[in-house]
Amino acid sequence: MPLQPDMHLISVDDHLIEHPRVWADRLPEKYRALGPHIVEVPREKGGPPSQVWEYQGKRFPQIGLNAVAGKSPEEYGIDPARFDEMLPGCYDPVQRLADMDLDGVEAALCFPSFPRFAGTVFLEGPDRAVALASVRAFNDFILDEWCAAAPHRYIPLVILPLWDVQEAVKEIHRTAAKGARTIAFPENPAPLGLPSVHSEHWDPVFSAAEELDLPLSLHFGTSGQSPRPSADGPLAVSITLFGTNSMSALTDLLFSPVFHKHPKLKVALSEGGIGWVPYIIERADYVWKRHRYYQNIDQTVSPSELYFEHVYSCFIDDRHGLKNRFDVGLDNILWECDYPHSDSNWPNSRKIAQDVFADVPDEQVRKIVETNARTLFNFPRQDR
Amino acid sequence: MPLQPDMHLISVDDHLIEHPRVWADRLPEKYRALGPHIVEVPREKGGPPSQVWEYQGKRFPQIGLNAVAGKSPEEYGIDPARFDEMLPGCYDPVQRLADMDLDGVEAALCFPSFPRFAGTVFLEGPDRAVALASVRAFNDFILDEWCAAAPHRYIPLVILPLWDVQEAVKEIHRTAAKGARTIAFPENPAPLGLPSVHSEHWDPVFSAAEELDLPLSLHFGTSGQSPRPSADGPLAVSITLFGTNSMSALTDLLFSPVFHKHPKLKVALSEGGIGWVPYIIERADYVWKRHRYYQNIDQTVSPSELYFEHVYSCFIDDRHGLKNRFDVGLDNILWECDYPHSDSNWPNSRKIAQDVFADVPDEQVRKIVETNARTLFNFPRQDR
Repeated sequence: MPLQPDMHLISVDDHLIEHPRVWADRLPEKYRALGPHIVEVPREKGGPPSQVWEYQGKRFPQIGLNAVAGKSPEEYGIDPARFDEMLPGCYDPVQRLADMDLDGVEAALCFPSFPRFAGTVFLEGPDRAVALASVRAFNDFILDEWCAAAPHRYIPLVILPLWDVQEAVKEIHRTAAKGARTIAFPENPAPLGLPSVHSEHWDPVFSAAEELDLPLSLHFGTSGQSPRPSADGPLAVSITLFGTNSMSALTDLLFSPVFHKHPKLKVALSEGGIGWVPYIIERADYVWKRHRYYQNIDQTVSPSELYFEHVYSCFIDDRHGLKNRFDVGLDNILWECDYPHSDSNWPNSRKIAQDVFADVPDEQVRKIVETNARTLFNFPRQDR
Repeated sequence: MPLQPDMHLISVDDHLIEHPRVWADRLPEKYRALGPHIVEVPREKGGPPSQVWEYQGKRFPQIGLNAVAGKSPEEYGIDPARFDEMLPGCYDPVQRLADMDLDGVEAALCFPSFPRFAGTVFLEGPDRAVALASVRAFNDFILDEWCAAAPHRYIPLVILPLWDVQEAVKEIHRTAAKGARTIAFPENPAPLGLPSVHSEHWDPVFSAAEELDLPLSLHFGTSGQSPRPSADGPLAVSITLFGTNSMSALTDLLFSPVFHKHPKLKVALSEGGIGWVPYIIERADYVWKRHRYYQNIDQTVSPSELYFEHVYSCFIDDRHGLKNRFDVGLDNILWECDYPHSDSNWPNSRKIAQDVFADVPDEQVRKIVETNARTLFNFPRQDR
C-alpha cells in the first residue's frame, strides 16, 4: 500500500534563502546600513565575486549554506556563493512552488537561512533596535511575500527577538494576527548564553504560544552547537550525529517544568529523525523510575507520557523509525523534504516516499505525511 | 521461551571498587607517598570521617561513586563515603562471587573505579614514574588478586599508561602474558587532550590489541565528557543521555581509518545501550552514501558493514533494542549487570532477564547472554 495519489505530502522542514531585498525593502532607512544587505567580495580563485550578507558591520560568508538541490552527491561539498549559482526555487516563492510540484510536495514549512533556523543571528551585534527591526522585517517577508504567494501551500513560521522576552511576546501576538502558524525556537537556548528551559525566563513566550495555538519548531543545530567528537574528524561524523542534538533537546524538555506549566504547548523536533525516539523515551522512563526521588523533577508524570502528549518527531526517510512507528507514536510523526539541503531527496521525494511507505497501511501513511501536520499547524486542506 | 537454567549470564560491565591496600601492597616504597592511598577526612555533618583517595597530592572525593547496590531507588542520591557503608561485594572478590550467585550471574568483566573506567586518572599529576607504577599495580591487582579469586568467573580487563604509546604497548604484552582478556580504552581520547582516533598515534596500541586478540572495552563517560545540555538541568538528563557518548564514539570510529587499518580489531561499547544502534548505523550509511565523495573517508566499505564486523553493543534491559535485535546484530549484542551501580537490577538480574527475554528464542538468548561474550573475550565455559 504505497502513498496514494490523493495524499498530500506536507514537508515540515524546508529552507528558504532570503533574496537580496528582504531587508532593503522593509527596514526603515535609518537602519538599512547596519541591517542585513548583500555585498560582493572577490573570490580567491577568480571568477565572479561571492555574494555575502553583511549585518551590523560583520560579514557572514555563506548565502547558500548547503543549498545543493539539483546537484548529484558527487558534486556536494561546494556550496553556491552567488544567487545565480543556485536554483531560483531557493529564494523565489513562485519558483519554489514549481519545484514542489516537480517533487510531488503539496505544502512546506520553510525555515530562514541567513538569520539561521531560529533567527539566532539577530542575537549578535550591539544595536538591538536594528536587530528588532530586522526580526520584524523577516517575519513580514515570510508572511506577506513568501507565504502570501500561496497561502495554502506555505505554513508560516516566524522568528523571535530572543534577547527580550517582552518583545518576543509582542512579536508572537503581532505575527499570529497576520497568520503565523509556528514559531522557530532554539532547540536549546542555554548554549546561546540565554536562560535554559529549566528557568522561568521563557514562561511568557511559552504561554503566548500556548494561548495562540502556535507550536514551537525546534530545528536541530539552533542551539549553535554541532556534534563533533574529535576536531580532526570528517564532517560526516557531525552530519551523522545531528540527531543527538534533538535527543538532548527532548530529554532536557522532558525533565524540565515546561510541559507541566504549559499543558497545551506542542513542539516539533525539526530534522531530528525518528529512529532514536523509542530508545530515548524508554531510557528517560527508566531513569525517571529510578532517579526521580532525590531530584527536582516532576514525581507523577513519566517522560514518555509527556512525549506523546507534547512532542512531534520529524523524518525524511528513516526506515528503522518507520518500522517502529507505533513506539515513536503514529500521531507524533511528521514528514520532511528538506529542500534545498543535501539530506533532501528532491526531486524524487514522492517516489522515495512511495518506497519508504510501501508496507504501511494507507490510514497510517496519511497521518504521517499529511494530517498530523495539518492538525498540529492548524493548516486545513484546500484542494486546488 | 525465557532464559533457560543452563544458560550462563555473563556481564560485560560490572564495577569493582579498589580496597585501601591495592596500591599500598604493590607500589615500590619510593612511590607510595605519591601513589593512591586512602585518607580520612571529617564530614561536615559529623559522624565517622569520609574515606577518600589521595594521588600525587590531589584528593578524589568519591571512593564509592554510584555504589548503591542493595539500596532502593528511594535511597539513591547519597553515595557511600566509607568502605563500611557499601556492600563488601563492591571491593572483595570473594564476597562479589556470593553477590553474583545471588543474582544468578556466572561471570563478570569489572571496570576500575578510582582510576576511572579507562584508567584516565593516571593522566593527571606531573610524576609519570608514579603513574606508570600505579597503572601496573592496578593491573597486577585485577589479574593476580581479583580475577585470580575465580579465574572462570572474572574476565580480566586491564588499563593502559595512556600518555605513552610505547609503554602502553609494553603493558599490553606484559598483561596479556598474565591472562588479560580485554583493554579498557577511552571511548574518545580527544577530549582528554590526547590524539584522536583519526590520527596515526594509536596504531601501535591497536595493532598490539589485534595481534593478541584483545578487544577494546569503551565504557561510556571515559572521554571525561558527560552530556549536559543545560547547566541548571537535573542529573536525570545526563543519565538519560549517557548513550549519546557511545553514539559519538561509534560514529567517530566508523568514519576513521581505525577498522580499515586494523581488520581484526574488535570494540565493545560498554553500557552504551543498544536501542539507538539501528538508527545510527542507518544514518551513518545514509551520510556515507551522499557525503563521502568530497571527504577524506573510506570510499568502499559502508559504516554498517564495519559495525557488524567490529563492534559489540551492550545493554542491561533495553527493550526497544532487543525487539530490534536483528538490526542491532544478533552476534553483536552483549548483556550487562552493572553491579553495584544504580542502573543494575541486582539482585534480580536473572529474574528481570527472564522477563526481558520472554519472547526471544532460546538459541538467540544464549548468544546474547553468554556465547557472544565467551567468543569475543576468548573466555570458554567451564562448568562448576
